[in-house]
Amino acid sequence: MSERYPSALLESAVNELASLPGVGRKTALRLALYMLRRDVGYTENFAAALVALRRDVKYCRVCHNICDDEICAICANPQRDHETVCVVENIKEVMAIENTGQFRGVYHVLGGIISPMDGTGPGDLQIDSLVERVARGEVKEVILALSTTMEGDTTNFFIYRKLAPYDVKTSMIARGVSIGDEIEYADEITLGRSIVNRTEFKMNS
Amino acid sequence: MSERYPSALLESAVNELASLPGVGRKTALRLALYMLRRDVGYTENFAAALVALRRDVKYCRVCHNICDDEICAICANPQRDHETVCVVENIKEVMAIENTGQFRGVYHVLGGIISPMDGTGPGDLQIDSLVERVARGEVKEVILALSTTMEGDTTNFFIYRKLAPYDVKTSMIARGVSIGDEIEYADEITLGRSIVNRTEFKMNS
Repeated sequence: MSERYPSALLESAVNELASLPGVGRKTALRLALYMLRRDVGYTENFAAALVALRRDVKYCRVCHNICDDEICAICANPQRDHETVCVVENIKEVMAIENTGQFRGVYHVLGGIISPMDGTGPGDLQIDSLVERVARGEVKEVILALSTTMEGDTTNFFIYRKLAPYDVKTSMIARGVSIGDEIEYADEITLGRSIVNRTEFKMNS
Repeated sequence: MSERYPSALLESAVNELASLPGVGRKTALRLALYMLRRDVGYTENFAAALVALRRDVKYCRVCHNICDDEICAICANPQRDHETVCVVENIKEVMAIENTGQFRGVYHVLGGIISPMDGTGPGDLQIDSLVERVARGEVKEVILALSTTMEGDTTNFFIYRKLAPYDVKTSMIARGVSIGDEIEYADEITLGRSIVNRTEFKMNS
């Protein structure tokens, strides 16, 4: 169905909204009309917040988490255990683990997961900088907290081999998270326990 | 669950996205992270389109439909039958009826529906300007195409009484649209037929 919009401005706004993942054209139109019912300041603040995020956001030089400074609040916190590094796929997993309140170490955000299907190889991820952190002797334990999918297992195995030459313990979160699930959707109790009950990474485990 | 965001910029963007109707905080975070994966120009264009819509959109002086000029493309079109006015709740209904290709008349957009529950009374809607159009003698038939809900029936009845003193035929779309449904979600065949098979508005019909 080709839709005819009564206004080019409306069509353009709907096109932009519908370009978001999971937003269809009906929803996009509904959102655009919602903005028309609010005052001008609402849309201006909305737009400014998104542009400010995209233009000004920084990534922590140590762990690659999103932050507003050079170093993120977790890496800059002397109360955290900087010898225990939890490797996660993305910032959503950092937030999910932080919300459990069960982890006092620091993070390393890969920025993705090895996925030949999506064209993501090890070179696209922050794996080299993880190896450098370990090579500097700062890290005693690396906890692998990736999704329990085939891609997660592949990435776990790749990192495990990369870290093998170094004197570092490699563990992974307990498989309390059900197989095939995404980390970010696990409930806090299960996710917290899986951090506490982490097991040493072994091949064929 | 109080969420701790690693970046105030991210939190601000998530707050704005989550203020949209039907968008929860998880979805808002997913959308914000999606923007971070796209280039800066994507978010800038996105934001600019929304602000341009809100700032620059106009409403047709005749029918109150959204448009880019003083008069909308439908009202400005001499090929349309300007003596037949279809009264709709909102611009979404104009688009839905236009998509059926069954209607060659013009519209009158009320901007809502009488709903005491939502605090919307007749004075909040473009009913007076509809009466003026009819009073000027320009209109031969008014087709009421409001949702077949109690609020729609109330509004139909209110408009019917307002137009009673004038020499104008008042019809309403055939009740092919199932009772309790919203106009915008009706399929094109049903909606098109209900325009063609419209019936004269009578009390107790």
